[in-house]
Amino acid sequence: MAIIHPCSKIQLPEMKSLFGSPGKVSGLVLRMGQCLFAAASLAVMASASGFSTATSFCFLIAAMGVQVLWSFGLACLDIHALRLNKDLHNHIVLSLLVIGDWVTAILSLAAACSSAGVMVVFMKDTGICRLETTLSCKTFQISVALAFVAWFLLAVSSYVMFWLLASI
Amino acid sequence: MAIIHPCSKIQLPEMKSLFGSPGKVSGLVLRMGQCLFAAASLAVMASASGFSTATSFCFLIAAMGVQVLWSFGLACLDIHALRLNKDLHNHIVLSLLVIGDWVTAILSLAAACSSAGVMVVFMKDTGICRLETTLSCKTFQISVALAFVAWFLLAVSSYVMFWLLASI
Repeated sequence: MAIIHPCSKIQLPEMKSLFGSPGKVSGLVLRMGQCLFAAASLAVMASASGFSTATSFCFLIAAMGVQVLWSFGLACLDIHALRLNKDLHNHIVLSLLVIGDWVTAILSLAAACSSAGVMVVFMKDTGICRLETTLSCKTFQISVALAFVAWFLLAVSSYVMFWLLASI
Repeated sequence: MAIIHPCSKIQLPEMKSLFGSPGKVSGLVLRMGQCLFAAASLAVMASASGFSTATSFCFLIAAMGVQVLWSFGLACLDIHALRLNKDLHNHIVLSLLVIGDWVTAILSLAAACSSAGVMVVFMKDTGICRLETTLSCKTFQISVALAFVAWFLLAVSSYVMFWLLASI
């Protein structure tokens, strides 16, 4: 007869298979998505003429640079954990990942929102985009949209990490 | 002899006394702080001349309005729970609070950051503040600073709620 443990409510094995957990294929896909979208946003913004006219666009490039480095590093960690079948679910690793994820996510959202605010000023409030043809406003918009996608993917990872940390 | 329960690791009573929990005095203080700072930010921005020149400033007013309503509602809920000594730590209440808190927090951060981005454009990138004296740029700055404080207090509540939801 199978003995049911009285503490079976803790359900650690179920928690570990959460979508996007570190050291899982879904986690790796999420990290690679973050890295790709952030890199695309950075490249598009850096290639746009006149991006240095607004400080927010320079901030977006810096924030996306930080996100590329962070997500690429964690994608490498996931690959390492998958290859060696390592378990990354310990308190110290998860705490570091939660802090890093949240700082990067807030930075990315702040950069994307401030750039979006500047875009609205340029396109609607002052109409600089129509007057100055040297500014590639369409390119700025694409970059900001990519930054929002990159932030969204990072936010998913951040919530999963925080949930895992709170439930171990 | 005291019997130690094998599942004592769950520590529910400790979790409930977390700083800023719903139905606690610390939670009520946090909600009142959020409500006050958001209302102050809204009032300062609405009293500034020329705030309607930038869409982001109107968005800030809307977002702070939402935060005032949300935080005021939850402050009332906390007072109700404190007076009747009710327990708000159940899954449905916490899930609703987590969703509401996170939506409001992201909205507030987006509004504060986009307004800050526009402020930088007005003060540094284009120098509109120096040219157009009808814009009360100092007042805009105070409002954006208050919005960041209101967002920070809401972010603390959001993390506490999410932590509680993950650990019950």
